[in-house]
Amino acid sequence: MSEHEGQEMTDKEQFRVIEEPFYQPQGNELALYEAAYAARLPVMVKGPTGCGKSRFIEYMAWKLGKPLITVACNEDMTASDLVGRYLLEANGTRWLDGPLTIAARIGAICYLDEIVEARQDTTVVIHPLTDHRRTLPLDKKGELIHAHPDFQLVISYNPGYQSLMKDLKQSTKQRFTAFEFDYPDADLEAAILCSESGIDSRIAGQLVNIGASARRLKGHGLDEGISTRLLVYAATLIKGGVAPRDACRMALVRPITDDHDIRDTLDHAIDVTFA
Amino acid sequence: MSEHEGQEMTDKEQFRVIEEPFYQPQGNELALYEAAYAARLPVMVKGPTGCGKSRFIEYMAWKLGKPLITVACNEDMTASDLVGRYLLEANGTRWLDGPLTIAARIGAICYLDEIVEARQDTTVVIHPLTDHRRTLPLDKKGELIHAHPDFQLVISYNPGYQSLMKDLKQSTKQRFTAFEFDYPDADLEAAILCSESGIDSRIAGQLVNIGASARRLKGHGLDEGISTRLLVYAATLIKGGVAPRDACRMALVRPITDDHDIRDTLDHAIDVTFA
Amino acid sequence: MSEHEGQEMTDKEQFRVIEEPFYQPQGNELALYEAAYAARLPVMVKGPTGCGKSRFIEYMAWKLGKPLITVACNEDMTASDLVGRYLLEANGTRWLDGPLTIAARIGAICYLDEIVEARQDTTVVIHPLTDHRRTLPLDKKGELIHAHPDFQLVISYNPGYQSLMKDLKQSTKQRFTAFEFDYPDADLEAAILCSESGIDSRIAGQLVNIGASARRLKGHGLDEGISTRLLVYAATLIKGGVAPRDACRMALVRPITDDHDIRDTLDHAIDVTFA
Amino acid sequence: MSEHEGQEMTDKEQFRVIEEPFYQPQGNELALYEAAYAARLPVMVKGPTGCGKSRFIEYMAWKLGKPLITVACNEDMTASDLVGRYLLEANGTRWLDGPLTIAARIGAICYLDEIVEARQDTTVVIHPLTDHRRTLPLDKKGELIHAHPDFQLVISYNPGYQSLMKDLKQSTKQRFTAFEFDYPDADLEAAILCSESGIDSRIAGQLVNIGASARRLKGHGLDEGISTRLLVYAATLIKGGVAPRDACRMALVRPITDDHDIRDTLDHAIDVTFA
Amino acid sequence: MSEHEGQEMTDKEQFRVIEEPFYQPQGNELALYEAAYAARLPVMVKGPTGCGKSRFIEYMAWKLGKPLITVACNEDMTASDLVGRYLLEANGTRWLDGPLTIAARIGAICYLDEIVEARQDTTVVIHPLTDHRRTLPLDKKGELIHAHPDFQLVISYNPGYQSLMKDLKQSTKQRFTAFEFDYPDADLEAAILCSESGIDSRIAGQLVNIGASARRLKGHGLDEGISTRLLVYAATLIKGGVAPRDACRMALVRPITDDHDIRDTLDHAIDVTFA
Amino acid sequence: MSEHEGQEMTDKEQFRVIEEPFYQPQGNELALYEAAYAARLPVMVKGPTGCGKSRFIEYMAWKLGKPLITVACNEDMTASDLVGRYLLEANGTRWLDGPLTIAARIGAICYLDEIVEARQDTTVVIHPLTDHRRTLPLDKKGELIHAHPDFQLVISYNPGYQSLMKDLKQSTKQRFTAFEFDYPDADLEAAILCSESGIDSRIAGQLVNIGASARRLKGHGLDEGISTRLLVYAATLIKGGVAPRDACRMALVRPITDDHDIRDTLDHAIDVTFA
Repeated sequence: MSEHEGQEMTDKEQFRVIEEPFYQPQGNELALYEAAYAARLPVMVKGPTGCGKSRFIEYMAWKLGKPLITVACNEDMTASDLVGRYLLEANGTRWLDGPLTIAARIGAICYLDEIVEARQDTTVVIHPLTDHRRTLPLDKKGELIHAHPDFQLVISYNPGYQSLMKDLKQSTKQRFTAFEFDYPDADLEAAILCSESGIDSRIAGQLVNIGASARRLKGHGLDEGISTRLLVYAATLIKGGVAPRDACRMALVRPITDDHDIRDTLDHAIDVTFA
Repeated sequence: MSEHEGQEMTDKEQFRVIEEPFYQPQGNELALYEAAYAARLPVMVKGPTGCGKSRFIEYMAWKLGKPLITVACNEDMTASDLVGRYLLEANGTRWLDGPLTIAARIGAICYLDEIVEARQDTTVVIHPLTDHRRTLPLDKKGELIHAHPDFQLVISYNPGYQSLMKDLKQSTKQRFTAFEFDYPDADLEAAILCSESGIDSRIAGQLVNIGASARRLKGHGLDEGISTRLLVYAATLIKGGVAPRDACRMALVRPITDDHDIRDTLDHAIDVTFA
Repeated sequence: MSEHEGQEMTDKEQFRVIEEPFYQPQGNELALYEAAYAARLPVMVKGPTGCGKSRFIEYMAWKLGKPLITVACNEDMTASDLVGRYLLEANGTRWLDGPLTIAARIGAICYLDEIVEARQDTTVVIHPLTDHRRTLPLDKKGELIHAHPDFQLVISYNPGYQSLMKDLKQSTKQRFTAFEFDYPDADLEAAILCSESGIDSRIAGQLVNIGASARRLKGHGLDEGISTRLLVYAATLIKGGVAPRDACRMALVRPITDDHDIRDTLDHAIDVTFA
Repeated sequence: MSEHEGQEMTDKEQFRVIEEPFYQPQGNELALYEAAYAARLPVMVKGPTGCGKSRFIEYMAWKLGKPLITVACNEDMTASDLVGRYLLEANGTRWLDGPLTIAARIGAICYLDEIVEARQDTTVVIHPLTDHRRTLPLDKKGELIHAHPDFQLVISYNPGYQSLMKDLKQSTKQRFTAFEFDYPDADLEAAILCSESGIDSRIAGQLVNIGASARRLKGHGLDEGISTRLLVYAATLIKGGVAPRDACRMALVRPITDDHDIRDTLDHAIDVTFA
Repeated sequence: MSEHEGQEMTDKEQFRVIEEPFYQPQGNELALYEAAYAARLPVMVKGPTGCGKSRFIEYMAWKLGKPLITVACNEDMTASDLVGRYLLEANGTRWLDGPLTIAARIGAICYLDEIVEARQDTTVVIHPLTDHRRTLPLDKKGELIHAHPDFQLVISYNPGYQSLMKDLKQSTKQRFTAFEFDYPDADLEAAILCSESGIDSRIAGQLVNIGASARRLKGHGLDEGISTRLLVYAATLIKGGVAPRDACRMALVRPITDDHDIRDTLDHAIDVTFA
Repeated sequence: MSEHEGQEMTDKEQFRVIEEPFYQPQGNELALYEAAYAARLPVMVKGPTGCGKSRFIEYMAWKLGKPLITVACNEDMTASDLVGRYLLEANGTRWLDGPLTIAARIGAICYLDEIVEARQDTTVVIHPLTDHRRTLPLDKKGELIHAHPDFQLVISYNPGYQSLMKDLKQSTKQRFTAFEFDYPDADLEAAILCSESGIDSRIAGQLVNIGASARRLKGHGLDEGISTRLLVYAATLIKGGVAPRDACRMALVRPITDDHDIRDTLDHAIDVTFA
């Protein structure tokens, strides 16, 4: 085994999802994802903050037994952050593969979270990886990488955020199959709360009801509904001994709004629920 | 054979299009391209996303037996990314040719994809390569390259995208002959679906109908029609066992729109087609 | 004990809050914070300038016996300022951990003050530290840090400042539990003035009354009310022998407004109080 | 005495204000400043161009016998310009303290002139120096400086300039006590003109009258009134033999306006005065 | 002969216009240019895209027997790109003259094509070369170059392009004598087509007619008329065996417009001409 | 004589104005400038393009026998370009004085042409050189320069250009005495034309008349009038044998306008004059 192969084995191990992530399917998304992966079609996951998009991809990587490399995109991220760059060292420069390059080499699922935040040069970099070429040109290194047969590209994107200034170009969108996510339905969400925090199902149901109320305010004073993640926070605090009203104010209301009217409306809903 | 010639031979081989790309002519574009190439006139290919512009150039490079160097342009791309730059190394600096320079040296067809995305200094760099001079000045290296007799410059451009802020200057446009592409007609597109995915022609025809419906919505809620590429995705998923309704939702609708009304309209068309 | 462990011991000592900070609780915030820390939930503290947010975190770090690393965020701050960077040295480059990385390694409470001022790439960096992963990828170093079990992330934020252009994204907000602060009530604030400056309680009460008057002008010509900090300044000057009217003009009015009408209104209130 | 202490002695000498600056008090500002300095409260001096703000601070530094380090802020000034940076040298890098760091080390009064011009990261740098911490973190050097007991921070700021885009944040303002300056009254200003230029008091009075006229035009065609500095210029030219009308046109009118009507109005006032 | 003189000889040879460029005078511009050159007055050539501005300067350089250095300006071009810069090498830095500096040293005609595209610092650099000083300060090198007696500066500029944001400053314009160009008249243009492509004069006349029709649409749907260059392209394709209708569509219409109505109007004119 | 003094002698010689520049006084500006210089007051020269501002300063430098260092300012010019910077060399870094620093050291008149074009950090750099301090801090070098007794700062500025975005700050303006220039009157301007080009006075008078007509169009279609410089160009061409009508079109009209109506109006005036 060459040194290079040895490094790839190590990388593969490092990015393996070892423990089964907790994931509750909402429909036939597991089978559809497997079909997309079987054809190595690029995948886009869409949906609101904290609804479980990243968890789904993590779960699929575990289920398929493939390494997963996640990159949280941001507006200062350039193509070099994905592809790699030369580092200046004592003896000249050394090339350092970026996460996309590593994924293409070792056959990982590369998950670009909130791709739309990144600068547009990054989206161009992924184009040749998403059509029949499945290649990644490292222009600065003068190398053309042919993606490993197991490699797949996944991106996430939150339609609620996109402004006119920040949207994926159609020439990028039309390279992906897409999954649309939403918050889990009430029973499933309550089950998730119980499973993750250990609270009983009655309180879980009450928290889910508060979440449902808040989500109806989206577009009427709230930019986003209360995510499942925040409901888990509230449940955790309650389980830890905090009074439900305090836990809800602290985990569900104060983080998401600075508006006094909205705050009072939500506080009232909490007081009624835990009267 | 000098070391330099040896390097050029290697580069030539690396960029050779070895396998015949699948390309179905839509008219006499092959002959017209050959005439433009014979006179080494620069070529511009125009048309919507995913209609086969890049495939056409790849096919012509194969047919003419010339190396092809493709550069996906982006808004952070500068002239140096095309022309080359000095790399800092242990023993000082080393010049690294950029893709345009390599193409001019070895006599490749250089294909600048979505040129209009690049910064304007890149368009100025290509000017002396597109008139009687056929030269490329490497200002930072103090070298003037006379393009190889086989060199040709090709650019692509999607008129649907161009905003007022981002358009080619007339002084650039007026250096090119132009080919205008559109989606293939129905029979041809169905044939492409069968050939690329292996589905039968009845389903191919149904998918092409859905594509035609969606393209009529362009400018009425859709920025772009459904590309041939996405139809191939849907066909591939169906061939892989996914129910046609699921495959179409996932490959044709979810990727291209976040608008609920448009989504429902397209979903309805799918349900009617695959009732 | 390895050299690395030795360094961590030193860092821990350096960031330990040794003396008990003066902090007067306003409600059950101590217990709620302890519950959040027990579950290692990320915490956001909200409230106006100079109301004691930073002091509260300093106090909790002392109470919990955990090191505290404070970072004052600013609009030129990038992810590298938090995470670390390579320094160029005589023998090549040396990696220097940033404050967030140090905190994650040694198990400190990392307090990002006015996080909203920082560039958005910084907020993305903190995401994997605020969910079940509790990891910090050092992309440039090729290292993935798993946060020390004692590590907790705290951010502050002043809702009064946020413009439309500068606000935390919901995908960031929904990773935190939140504490909402306000100025202390009158008795508590007077006690603070006495304790910090040594003035007598009558003058302290008079200063608190002036503060209360000014806070009612917020939104009616004043961007912010007079902070407790400025009241302490005035008290200190009076204790140092400055006439109360001069001390108040200099510490309470001139710093916060350039508007002549507002200035005269506040000066009048001072003259009436110290008539 | 260590080498480091020796360097600090040298720095202290270099920034000592040796000669008593000419300063004519306008009220009890000397005593108030001494009280602020005694408590080491940060000081802000506000007022129009050329009214003597910088001279006042220079005078106080001389009176208190403390070194003075002045930094003229500008919009390209970053935190590193204040704090220090690594210089690349033949044997690697060497740290160079910035002026704020030097001031904090040696116990100087650090005077940041027109602070509002600087980029916002600079204002964040000064925050920990202006509260109970009195510290300056050199993040890039991994050093936390505890300010010398004699250190004090002073900033200046011209309220007439501030646009909506450029203003100090309240979280910065509320860290300072403030002195508000204006042009000296007529008798004092005439005395200054005599003292600085050597002209007789009659001409000084005439110049002061012209200044007073011009200051009434502020906001009615003039952005700022004529400063005491320009009156000193005119007096100097007259003393040097230039005709008063020429001196006033050249020193008082042409520098401050390009508007023909305003120019003629001021020229007329000059002609009437020196008829 | 010193090494420096040897280098200059080499540079002179490299930039010599060896072959007589094809240029058909339109008036007395040859004599006027010679008069401007005799007095070394700077020259500006104005006119639409592809009307022969660059060819004229190339011709004059040949006729006068002077080296010609052409620089295609672009919006990322800075003064350093014109003047020169230090390159980092193994043994420290080496100065590399820019094209303007070389021209000033060897006595070339320096032709800055589309100067208005460059950043404004470039226009300031040329000022001292265009008045009685005829000097070029290399600030970074600490050298003041006195231009060679044969040096002349020429700029081009297309008035049709200039937006309000991008125009030469009057302080730059008023340093040049100016030549105004337009498309050649019909007979001359037909002669050019015959001479450059080898087609017969009847077809040449037909192409010129189409060009004339299109130029009348300038400002009525077309940003620019069809240039002589594009007419030469069409002629070349026809000579190469392409049907005139196809050649005109491909060389004259598709490159210059994306508007369907304009396209159809021009196509119709072509069909009528080649009926 | 030390090496440093030797260098300063050399610098002084290099910037000495050796030949008397041709300058025709328009009033008592010579005496006024001498008075300003005697008191070392900073000077601002205002006026339209090409009216002789730079020539005046050059003349005064010659008359006073002081070295003159001219810096053409531009919007990319930073404080470092004026003050100096470290250059990276084989043996580490070497400090290179900028032109302002050299001027302050050797006692030159430093002339910042079109100062308003420079970035604002440059204007802050000159402040301590323009008040009683007469110092220039080289922050990056840790050196404080006390200006040579002969040093004087002069700036130019064209009021016609200033937009709201680009104007000197009052805190800068109020540090200068100011000279306002305009085009020379007719007789003087004709004398200048004769003296500089050698044409006879009749033609000179005709050219001056054309100039006067054009200047009346300023603000009515022309941004600036025709400068004396352009009149000298026309005179030079006529002296060189060009027909007056051609010379005027080429030197007076084509450079300053792209507007067809204005062009025709001016051409007509030329034809009438040289009928």
